[in-house]
Order: sequence, then C-alpha cells, then structure tokens
Amino acid sequence: MAGYRLEDLAERFGLTLRGDPARRVLGVGTLAGASAQQLAFMANARYIAQLRGTHAAAVVLGADAAAECPVPALIAADPYLAYARIAALFEHAPATLPGVHASAVIEPGASIDPAASVGAQCFVAASARIAAGAVLGPHCIIGPDCMVGAQTRLVARVTLVLRVRIGQRVLIQPGAVLGGDGFGLAWAGEHWEKVPQLGGVRVGDDCEIGANTTIDRGALDDTVLEDDVRLDNQIQIAHNVHIGSHTALAGCAAVAGSARIGRHCLVGGGAGVLGHLEVCDRVTITAMTLVTHSIREPGEYSSGTPLQVNRDWRRNAVRLKQLDSLARRIAALEKGQPK
Amino acid sequence: MAGYRLEDLAERFGLTLRGDPARRVLGVGTLAGASAQQLAFMANARYIAQLRGTHAAAVVLGADAAAECPVPALIAADPYLAYARIAALFEHAPATLPGVHASAVIEPGASIDPAASVGAQCFVAASARIAAGAVLGPHCIIGPDCMVGAQTRLVARVTLVLRVRIGQRVLIQPGAVLGGDGFGLAWAGEHWEKVPQLGGVRVGDDCEIGANTTIDRGALDDTVLEDDVRLDNQIQIAHNVHIGSHTALAGCAAVAGSARIGRHCLVGGGAGVLGHLEVCDRVTITAMTLVTHSIREPGEYSSGTPLQVNRDWRRNAVRLKQLDSLARRIAALEKGQPK
Amino acid sequence: MAGYRLEDLAERFGLTLRGDPARRVLGVGTLAGASAQQLAFMANARYIAQLRGTHAAAVVLGADAAAECPVPALIAADPYLAYARIAALFEHAPATLPGVHASAVIEPGASIDPAASVGAQCFVAASARIAAGAVLGPHCIIGPDCMVGAQTRLVARVTLVLRVRIGQRVLIQPGAVLGGDGFGLAWAGEHWEKVPQLGGVRVGDDCEIGANTTIDRGALDDTVLEDDVRLDNQIQIAHNVHIGSHTALAGCAAVAGSARIGRHCLVGGGAGVLGHLEVCDRVTITAMTLVTHSIREPGEYSSGTPLQVNRDWRRNAVRLKQLDSLARRIAALEKGQPK
Repeated sequence: MAGYRLEDLAERFGLTLRGDPARRVLGVGTLAGASAQQLAFMANARYIAQLRGTHAAAVVLGADAAAECPVPALIAADPYLAYARIAALFEHAPATLPGVHASAVIEPGASIDPAASVGAQCFVAASARIAAGAVLGPHCIIGPDCMVGAQTRLVARVTLVLRVRIGQRVLIQPGAVLGGDGFGLAWAGEHWEKVPQLGGVRVGDDCEIGANTTIDRGALDDTVLEDDVRLDNQIQIAHNVHIGSHTALAGCAAVAGSARIGRHCLVGGGAGVLGHLEVCDRVTITAMTLVTHSIREPGEYSSGTPLQVNRDWRRNAVRLKQLDSLARRIAALEKGQPK
Repeated sequence: MAGYRLEDLAERFGLTLRGDPARRVLGVGTLAGASAQQLAFMANARYIAQLRGTHAAAVVLGADAAAECPVPALIAADPYLAYARIAALFEHAPATLPGVHASAVIEPGASIDPAASVGAQCFVAASARIAAGAVLGPHCIIGPDCMVGAQTRLVARVTLVLRVRIGQRVLIQPGAVLGGDGFGLAWAGEHWEKVPQLGGVRVGDDCEIGANTTIDRGALDDTVLEDDVRLDNQIQIAHNVHIGSHTALAGCAAVAGSARIGRHCLVGGGAGVLGHLEVCDRVTITAMTLVTHSIREPGEYSSGTPLQVNRDWRRNAVRLKQLDSLARRIAALEKGQPK
Repeated sequence: MAGYRLEDLAERFGLTLRGDPARRVLGVGTLAGASAQQLAFMANARYIAQLRGTHAAAVVLGADAAAECPVPALIAADPYLAYARIAALFEHAPATLPGVHASAVIEPGASIDPAASVGAQCFVAASARIAAGAVLGPHCIIGPDCMVGAQTRLVARVTLVLRVRIGQRVLIQPGAVLGGDGFGLAWAGEHWEKVPQLGGVRVGDDCEIGANTTIDRGALDDTVLEDDVRLDNQIQIAHNVHIGSHTALAGCAAVAGSARIGRHCLVGGGAGVLGHLEVCDRVTITAMTLVTHSIREPGEYSSGTPLQVNRDWRRNAVRLKQLDSLARRIAALEKGQPK
C-alpha cells in the first residue's frame, strides 16, 4: 500500500510518535493546507494558531508544542530537519539515464564517464572531464579544462567557462556562470588594459549554487569554495575570493575580489563584502549590510538604517547630513558654551 | 500612403487635435530628436524647454502644456498612455510562424499546440504543455510539468525548470529562470541538508518578467504572481513569495522567502523585502530600501541615507556609531546634568 | 628555450632590471605562491611582508619597494600595469578557427564574415551581421538587426536580443543579455500597458561586459556605452542610459532609465543611480551608494552607514528614527529652553 505508516516514520527517523501508529501519510503539506493524508510540520512558534486548526494526518514538531497538536504528532529534537528528511521521501526527481544526448556537441578529446548523463544540446570542450554519475541537464556548457565531479548535478543551462573544477554531489541551478573572467583592469594613462585572469575556480563537495549566480575565476590563484558552501540565486563571487566550509549566502549577496570569508558564516540577502577583507568563522551578516572592514570576532554584524514612512525618513535624512555638527553642538552645550 | 494622419490618430485614441488634421506621422521620436515626420510626446514638465524647440510633426501632451507647443498638438488626459498606444502602431515584432523549429528537441509526450511556435534549439520536456499562440524564441527550456499559456511569449533563452505554470499573454525576457530550487537548508549538526522543494511557480495573465530575473519554486505551496505583475531585470523572487495583481518591481529588487506583497504596489530598484513579511496593498517602497517589518498601511516607505561628498559622509558616519550616546547626552543636558 | 629572460622583459616593457639578466621566467604567480620559475608583482604596500618572503624568480614593483626585494626586481613606474602586460604573454586563449559550427542555426540572410567564428549551437537571425575576426562561443544568440564588430568576442551564451550594435574588440562574458525590452509601463486606469521599446543598444569599441549583466534597449533613442566602458558581472543598465568612455562599474551596480554617467567615472559594487540623473565626468561612487540627485562636481560620493556589531547597530538605529527631534532638542537647549 502506498505511503508511509507513522510508526514506520518514527522508527526510521528516530522520532517519538503520539497518536495512531497505523495512520498513513501519502505526502507533505503546510499546516494550513495539508489534507488528512499529508504530513505537516511546525518549526516556528509563530504558526501555533495554524497548528491548532490543522487537518494534517500528523505534524512533525518539537516537544514543547506537542500538547497543542490536534492530530497525531511526531516529536523531534529538530522538527525542521526531521521534516526535511521525511519530505525527501516524497521528492521524485526525473530519472536520468546515463549517456550523451544525440543533440549534444562533444569535442573530440572530452572525457565523459559512461555512467554520466549529458543532456540535450550540451556543449563539452575537448579538455573537459565529466565523472561517473554526474548529470548535465539541457544546454550546459563545459569549457576547456573544466571538471565535473561524481554525482554532481547541473540542472540546466549552467556554464563552466574555463579551468573550473567542481567536486562531488554539487548542485548547480540554471543560469549560473562559473569561471568567467575576473574583473581586472590596469589604467594605462589613456585607457584601460585588461589584466589576464590566469587562475581557475575550485568548488568543493556538497556545495549548492543558485540560479544566475556568477563566480569568476582567479587572477593568479583560484577562486575557492570549500565543501558544503551554499549559495542562493544571483550571488556575485569575484576573483580570488575564498569561502569556508558550511558558509551560506542568501540571494543577491556579493563578495568583492580577494575577500576571504570563514567557515560557518551566514551572509544575508543583498549584503556586500569589500575586496581584500577577511571575515572570520561563525560570523552572521544581516541583509543588505556592507562589510567595509575585516571582522575578527564571531558574532552578528549590520549596517543600514531602519524602515520609515517616507515623510519621516526625509525629515531625519536631512539631519544625517548635519550629524557631525549636531555632535559638536552637543559638546559645546556640555561645556556651557551654546554655539 | 504610409503613416497616419493626425486627424485619424486623434479619432482613434480619443485625443483633441490642435493643428493640421492632414499632417502625417511615419514614426515616433523624442522631443529633441524627432524629425518633421515623427510624433513626439511630453509627459513631464521638466522637458518644457525641449518642447519649445521641437521639430516633431506633432506632440502628444497634456492640455496645460498645449499653449507652449510650436507644432501640432494631440492633447491627451494621460499623454504617456496615449503615446504608448500610438507608438505600438510603429512596433514591428518579427513575425513568428507556428510550428517547431527543426533544431528543437521535443521529448515524446510533450504537448505543443499546432498554433504555437517553438524556436531554434529549444528543449521541451515530456510532460510540458505549450498552448496556442505561445511563442518560444531560440534556446528556451521548458522543463517537466511546466505549462506555457496562450499568446505568451518567451523572447529567447528562458528556462522553466519544474512545475511552472505561466498564464496568458505573459512576456518573459532572456535569461529568466523560473522554478529553480528554493533555498531551503536545515542544519544537521555538522553540515547542511537540503530541504526538498516540492511546490511550483504560478504566474498569472498579462505579467512581464525581465532579463535574468529568477523566481524559485515553492517548498510546499507555489510561489505566486497574480495577474498583471511586472518585474524588471535581475529581480530575485524566493520560494513561496506571493505578489498581488498590478504590482511592479524595478530592477534588482529582491523578495525573500514566504513574503507577501499586496496589489498595486511599487517596489523601487534594488529594494529588498525580508522573509515572512506582509506588505499591504498600495505601498510604494523607494529604491534600495530594506523592508524589515510588515507594512499594514498604504503609503511610501524608505530607508537609507542621503548622498554626500565622501569627506562629509565619513565625518557624519563616525557620529552614526555614537548616536545612542549622543541622544543620552542630549537627555542629560535637558535634565541640567551635563555628562 | 621556453619562457622569457628578465633582461628581455625589461627591454620589451621599458623596466629597470636589478638582478641577474639571464634569469628565466616560465609563468606568473603571487608573491606568496610563485615558484623560482615564476614572476610575481607588488602593487600595494600592504603586501610588503610577502615581498620579503617571496621565492619568485623576480618581482615587478615600484622603485620605493625595490630595496626590500630579496630576489631580482623589475622596477616599473606602474607595477600593476607592467605586470598585466607581462602576464598577457602567458595567457593562452583557446584557438578559434574561422567558420560556422555545423550545429549552429543561421537564418537565411544573415551576414557572417568568412573570417568570423560562430560556435556550437549559436543562433544568428536573418538580419544580423558578424564582422571579420569576431568570435562567438557556444550558445550565443544574435537577434534581428544586431551587429557584432570586428575582433569582438562573445565568450559563450551571450544574447543580443534586438537592434544591438557592438563595436570592435569588445569582450562579453556568458549570460549577458543586451537589447531586452526596457521596462516601460503606462498605467491605464485598471491595468498596466506596455510602452513599446523602439530603440536599440550601442556599445563602443574596447568595452567589456560581465557575466549575467543586462543592458536594455532604449524606448526611442538608443542605450549607449561609449568606448572603453568596463562593466563587471550582474550589472543592470536600463533603457536610454548613456555611459561615457573609460567609465568602469563594479559588480551588481545598477543604473536606472535615462541616467547619464560621464567619462572616467568609477561606480562601486552594488551602487545605484536613479533615473534621469546626470553624473559628470571623473566621479567616484563608493560601493552600495544610492545616487539620488545629479552630481555636477568631480569627486568621491557616498551614502550608507558604517558596519557595527548588531547589538550596537540596533541601539543606534532606533535613534535614527528620532534624529529630527534630537536636532530640535539641541536647538532648544541652545536657546536655553530645554524641551
């Protein structure tokens, strides 16, 4: 019979079941939308009202919320993680057969493992290598001296330009461009001259790279992502950046040339890191913050101003331009010398 | 005879003509650049000097500016809208014949209406559907369980990854990626685990999506654009975002996961909306503002600081870091207790 | 024998050699990583410690640092420029033969110079022209009325949509989209109407355009990049923008419609320029600054707030919303009327 019994899910994922062990789930859904055949989860107390009204078959949640659950509960130490693992049972990736699609263009000399899959209209350059179990969706370009590791999946239309080495089990979304020229210019008195970009890009194992994200190749050394780095969409990684393991960057973040970001960091959406800076391990940067100096202490860092109604914002913004003089006037008042 | 008589334009678009009814226009141009055979428009009083010097065949403008017009005038309640409609007469879209280009790869099982046009080197997956009158320019990818509605046009190189349903008369520019994985990660103690992204993307009728814009598919429910939503280039829409009808976002704006934006909103370029927030109907967000809390009242909202000469900016920026202590010093002064 | 003698490099590039004239370099490397067969450079005094420890064959540097160099030195007035030119000797671009790849789709009527190279799976529209020596990497799309100038190189997967004219010796990275529709909308009372985008894009000679950068075509006149304009990745240039010669924009910068940026400007990463503004020649905009008014004087301009530990930032941010009232309280204190 289809689906999974709650009892079996509890055992498989080490959860505590409260409720009917024989109940079956056929899929997953939100607290508000799940049917009586679907499993929901609650990982955030703000959804407590939705929990109380849920019609799900069961809910994955923390012990503290179990008493509020009107349906069977699967109690987890980390409900979001437990949900993620259960949900994976219901994800049906399109099957990909090994082999090269007839419409792909493979230059002579390219090395493609027989257990790799190369999709429609891909282009693979002479000196490229594709390892066993790698999957290239349609329209990927694998340029000279590029390598795609085992079990790595390029969803579709990914471009590896030059000297890009991708590790194992990496996932890259469409539109990503890795190994483009770093932006290196020297001013020659009357015009710009291009600085050759002789390095490459190295991406470790288990990384994820979002749609339309760009990672330039290094000027001399490589641009590097260590293992388990997670990049969202539309991120810009400039040449010679180095990003440590387990660091995650949210959409539209950007890191300028030769900056070095540590391990276990979280960079918020639209945040920027200036060139040549160092950010140590376990740093969180909030959304749209600009990092203008190196960070040597773990912690959370921010810049920017609070959201306001435009009329109020304008009034305060005028004062921002007077801030230094306001500070001097305060000092003068303190000395008893107004103005 | 080619072109349009002013009299005919006035009648067709409900405008008041002042000047020679038989004059013909063969095209459109700017106030400054239009020839005596071209129609210009003025929708903004800042261009009054250009109006006075124009050599256009005629100018579309508001009643208040008509007296300043040295050439025939087509007076409109909304000159920009009237201009847009007239200009459409001079737009010659390349003709596209129905049918599938010989170089396209269509998987068996794909459903393509005979009155649709599929361009060179497109890829259409087995379970995809293309409705009548839809036009796919070269290099589009239509992935599994995706649907393109009637009269919708994918200009070129658009990627629909998985479970993307596009309404009717939608226009999508090159490089856009819809239906990529949402950025969902659960920390598993020593590494990240991916949270399956089981939802899709739904785009209503009459929407427009800019070049290199990305719209991720939902984690459980769909990411949704209602009808007549207009997205400029390089916009990032995260999973499970919901955007109401008639809302427009300017270039490089970004909306984080599960945020909900109302109808008739305007979001400025480079602005960001944090995850899980709600923005009500008829809100304007100015450029590069970060929305950090939900907005419940219509109106205009802003964050950020004013542009300054760098030397002055530096002086004031130092004081920003002292702002709380400056405020305390003011309070102390008010109490008559300097320092 | 392979490589270059220091003596020969000094003569060829007009440098002063201090050390063994017969020493050979086979490549280039960083100060820290260069082997005894590689040339390094130092253009920034912050790397002086690395200079003292280098094992390079020789170092290109300024006269002021030569005394600290433990290996042969090539002394240059501009060490970065001299390095760039030497490094170019070691750059081996993949050879491209003239001709059209068998998998490319060329519409009848397209004009392709016999000395141009059109790569795998490119699409060239009927009315497009490709000049001698131009190189199109795989998956490029050259749309109607587009022109690619002599010696220009589209690395891969570049899209020229409509009416785009590219000059000579231009370099365009993958994913760039030029000539997409400008974002022009007129509100028609109950819905948006599209304003036809009848102009094109003109890119001068010697320009560089980064990966996933977008440049929209003009509404009436063209969007224009003059000669030697350098755009990094993920930049957004809206319709009718005009950018002067020798101006460089760093990654993720954005310029809104009809803005005009002068010559010899530098725009930092993530910076924005609002529509219809003018920025004069020789202006520097720092990273993530928003230009909200026209700039008439050369110089450096900024907006934004300094990076802080989040806890401090929050405390100060609250005060930002009170800034106008704080300023009034200072004025009251100065008048001797506390509160």
